Amino acid sequence: MRSRRWTYLKPLAAFAGVFCFWLAAAQAQSDALPSWNDGPAKQAIIEFVQKTTDKSSSTFVPQEERVATFDQDGTLWVEHPIYTQVLYCLDRVPAFVKEKPALAEVEPFKTVISGNREAIAKLSMHDLFKILAVTLTGMSVDEFKTQVKNWLDTARDPRWKRAYTELTYLPMLELLKYLRANGYKTYIVTGGGQDFVRVYAEQVYGIPPEQVVGTMGGTKYGYDKEGRPFLTKEPKLLLNDNDAGKPEGIHLMIGRRPYAAFGNSTGDSEMLEYTKAGDGTRLAMLVLHDDAEREYAYGPAQDLPDTKVGTFTQDLYDQAKKGGWTVISMKNDWKHIFAFEN
Amino acid sequence: MRSRRWTYLKPLAAFAGVFCFWLAAAQAQSDALPSWNDGPAKQAIIEFVQKTTDKSSSTFVPQEERVATFDQDGTLWVEHPIYTQVLYCLDRVPAFVKEKPALAEVEPFKTVISGNREAIAKLSMHDLFKILAVTLTGMSVDEFKTQVKNWLDTARDPRWKRAYTELTYLPMLELLKYLRANGYKTYIVTGGGQDFVRVYAEQVYGIPPEQVVGTMGGTKYGYDKEGRPFLTKEPKLLLNDNDAGKPEGIHLMIGRRPYAAFGNSTGDSEMLEYTKAGDGTRLAMLVLHDDAEREYAYGPAQDLPDTKVGTFTQDLYDQAKKGGWTVISMKNDWKHIFAFEN
Repeated sequence: MRSRRWTYLKPLAAFAGVFCFWLAAAQAQSDALPSWNDGPAKQAIIEFVQKTTDKSSSTFVPQEERVATFDQDGTLWVEHPIYTQVLYCLDRVPAFVKEKPALAEVEPFKTVISGNREAIAKLSMHDLFKILAVTLTGMSVDEFKTQVKNWLDTARDPRWKRAYTELTYLPMLELLKYLRANGYKTYIVTGGGQDFVRVYAEQVYGIPPEQVVGTMGGTKYGYDKEGRPFLTKEPKLLLNDNDAGKPEGIHLMIGRRPYAAFGNSTGDSEMLEYTKAGDGTRLAMLVLHDDAEREYAYGPAQDLPDTKVGTFTQDLYDQAKKGGWTVISMKNDWKHIFAFEN
Repeated sequence: MRSRRWTYLKPLAAFAGVFCFWLAAAQAQSDALPSWNDGPAKQAIIEFVQKTTDKSSSTFVPQEERVATFDQDGTLWVEHPIYTQVLYCLDRVPAFVKEKPALAEVEPFKTVISGNREAIAKLSMHDLFKILAVTLTGMSVDEFKTQVKNWLDTARDPRWKRAYTELTYLPMLELLKYLRANGYKTYIVTGGGQDFVRVYAEQVYGIPPEQVVGTMGGTKYGYDKEGRPFLTKEPKLLLNDNDAGKPEGIHLMIGRRPYAAFGNSTGDSEMLEYTKAGDGTRLAMLVLHDDAEREYAYGPAQDLPDTKVGTFTQDLYDQAKKGGWTVISMKNDWKHIFAFEN
């Protein structure tokens, strides 16, 4: 009799097992984004992934076509008050002038090595380009990599006293992993220098060099004294990976239209628009910097009077609304901003 | 008693099982290249894979760094007597002239639509570039893809009466699969147009569009009448992916030095040299077209007096010998050349 009772219980136990498994799976699914508050942004992400990865869905996307592109500055890490790569270039000037001492008296280098922050802030775009040119080109690609790596190891952000690579947004790191766990290939599509971002992208974002699309400069093949070949970074712009340059860079480097794209400024609008214009279910999201306390507030949520970084204008806000893009409020949608917060 | 005898046999059975498994694995390993004859070329490939994928080896390469690059014309498929992409461009001229009838009387289009093969063969490089420019640019990237796809579906090679995509070398297709099975990411690095090769690379070689590096043209972002964004192919050369352009293109698109590189002409020598100059174990191989009967013989094994395609010069042969590159003799190293042979 006893054994019969157990027999009756078996299907129930099996059902309970399946139910627990389903619950755990559902839990794991929602837990993939623990730094996101429940709300329209998190919901949009999860719905997008479900619709494009469920084989029974009419908007299922084969794995090889699953491409997600991310702007970097202001989307994956802090860009305010000045792009990290520009800081790098300014910091490289003394080393450059040491190699060519005659330049110590030549502008804009003279101003930069004076250390006068007010004067440096007033440098023109023309001066800035001169600085970028000499600090980002002229060396071998391997030397450049070493220079950037050394700088990242020692430079510290003045506000948080942290390495710049720690100023990445935890919710976006979770999002990158969540998309990859669902078969998406994640790419950076940045206005920053492609070779600059490649130095740390694999370690910081889990994105390998071949999946970093950025502003591209030419290189020149040559030989050293021992006859060994190497590549020198040339001051020749191949593609400015901003604005319309983003979809152009995506075509050049990936050759597929993304299914999801993430940005935070007018420089990303063509990428998001291009992504959304594709067939099926596509996701376009904009990070809105509206958290003056935990990070910064600028753009439409402007507490800062003037900013030299990517702009989130009212026009962009309107375009987002019209195009069905989702705006991510840092203040409301993100439980945590940085991994080091706790 | 009987049960004890079986107990004694157990370890033996287990050993036999393991042995059979090992044998099967070893068999599978050598069978991964069934169209290759045993010899120095096949041996070089297998040794390279063993040395770079065995974790206990001092020359072990982590999976994310395993990059292998392949030239296409003459390395993965037939290039003689004329590059397939050039044939495509010539075949596109009538459609182009139909759209712009005034050009029917303008050279070099007049000669091309005359169909006079002798006159076409005598066209200058300057004329050829004019033809390439009008047939490869000016349309949207999607239109271009459709045009190439349609042509590939119908065009037939006059010698074998086969689609051009069937004129791929079976031993190289096996090699691509073998490297991928061992964790290598396989790339095409071709002097041909990047967008042209991307149309069929996934289906024919198992190489996705993002792993096709080729001669790169610019695109221009714009909008159609309904306001939908699209990209137009522009007559603007970003990178000529030949000679020194190959390592430059590899840096631009991949950002890593390959561990293995395969070519067949002087246009590949910088890529092979660059590959071999890296640390650890690297493989550089050249396909020698020395099989006049089953394919063609040209270069040092020259039966054909004059060729307009990639040249395997005596200098290249000497460089291969000096640099420790392995020459693949189509005649001796390949059991089969095409999949359709049998």
